[in-house]
Amino acid sequence: MRKIYVIGIGAGDPDHLTLQAAKAIGRTDVFFLLDKGEAKESMIELRRRMLKAYGKPGRRIAEGRDPDRDRTPADYEGTIADWRRRRSEVTEALISEHLLDDEVGAFLVWGDPSLYDSTIAILEEILARGATRFEYEVVPGISSVSALAAKHRVGVNRVGQPFQVTTGRRLAEQWPAGVDDVIVMLDAHQSFGTVEGDVDIYWGAYLGTPDELLISGPLAEVADEIRRVRAEARERHGWIMDTYLLRRRT
Amino acid sequence: MRKIYVIGIGAGDPDHLTLQAAKAIGRTDVFFLLDKGEAKESMIELRRRMLKAYGKPGRRIAEGRDPDRDRTPADYEGTIADWRRRRSEVTEALISEHLLDDEVGAFLVWGDPSLYDSTIAILEEILARGATRFEYEVVPGISSVSALAAKHRVGVNRVGQPFQVTTGRRLAEQWPAGVDDVIVMLDAHQSFGTVEGDVDIYWGAYLGTPDELLISGPLAEVADEIRRVRAEARERHGWIMDTYLLRRRT
Repeated sequence: MRKIYVIGIGAGDPDHLTLQAAKAIGRTDVFFLLDKGEAKESMIELRRRMLKAYGKPGRRIAEGRDPDRDRTPADYEGTIADWRRRRSEVTEALISEHLLDDEVGAFLVWGDPSLYDSTIAILEEILARGATRFEYEVVPGISSVSALAAKHRVGVNRVGQPFQVTTGRRLAEQWPAGVDDVIVMLDAHQSFGTVEGDVDIYWGAYLGTPDELLISGPLAEVADEIRRVRAEARERHGWIMDTYLLRRRT
Repeated sequence: MRKIYVIGIGAGDPDHLTLQAAKAIGRTDVFFLLDKGEAKESMIELRRRMLKAYGKPGRRIAEGRDPDRDRTPADYEGTIADWRRRRSEVTEALISEHLLDDEVGAFLVWGDPSLYDSTIAILEEILARGATRFEYEVVPGISSVSALAAKHRVGVNRVGQPFQVTTGRRLAEQWPAGVDDVIVMLDAHQSFGTVEGDVDIYWGAYLGTPDELLISGPLAEVADEIRRVRAEARERHGWIMDTYLLRRRT
């Protein structure tokens, strides 16, 4: 039986790698990479260094072209579902073509595979179609949420209190009901600008990398600084990945 | 200046340790342990093995007695605040007495220090009192949430959707507003029993350890099994630490 690892490799710091992840990398014959042609050169380089440090001799890399998707769709979930299906077809072709019987394959996932990542869902979709068979295992990783909280030295929850993890898209609609602590992922539009009231923000970008940026303080006081720093960094690097915690004072 | 690491060591699997955590352990002169006299022998043993594997020669251990607290308080937050203050006093005494100038100390925290753990807040409380000075750094760890999701091979969120992390105490009051996916921590009373409707549960205990237990399925069908397995395990081990994801079908 073929086996596939879905390996969380942490938020950007090579030392976020767990011993479990390093061992899984060392057992892998074929690494599957789905990348856009563009950008994120520093992240690709980091992954390359991990393979060099922990991969076994003779390991192979099977690269596929990540399908394009509409970044500003009218029907968000429908668009994502369609993109996921096309992505699963590219992925299935890679697995069928490159992973031999009794070999071990792996996907390296930034952060933690359980948090806003589609690899698990894509593998389930392939298995559900029934044409390509394999077993698979998920190796947890340090999420950008854990990395953010560690760098700011804050808890994501307050004593006995709940918190919510949501997207920039949803925060822009309204502050989530029933919580005073909100972590925002996938926010391309600085939705913190829509938030009113007495709120502190803990913001971070390129977490764990040499380019890491951290800003925190009362939202009303630091929002403009975050917008400015974010725009400059995005311009300089060609891409940005950021996340933040909003904490309402109570 | 004295330095203190707050090191997340993962949910129970020794291979959850990150390279960053292993390096921080290797730089530490004094490990601070606050333990109850009782129970969790297997977890203490796991920590001992980590120190043996990654600690430097001559490292010391400074042990303090964790203050007792009322486990069924009328005023939950007040009781926790009082317990935290007493805990910070014990901790401050340990640091003052055992950590010399220019030495490095460390607290080893299960899971991730940002998630339902009080170590960061305790260090802030000590610094705020102003009598004991040190710098400190947080090393993120694999949380029980990431470990749970990895073992069940599920995402904690669905596409573009938010999720909430909350406590058993709060779930027993009501299903959180605005979310269909809820992760429950610190649930001593199997509060999933109060949940109605078409919900799947992904439950895990002793995650990452040889005693790990995993049960998943429609809540109505597996709730009794979880109660039975949980009660037997708790009886056998003398303690239990469990967490679960509830996913409402939509």
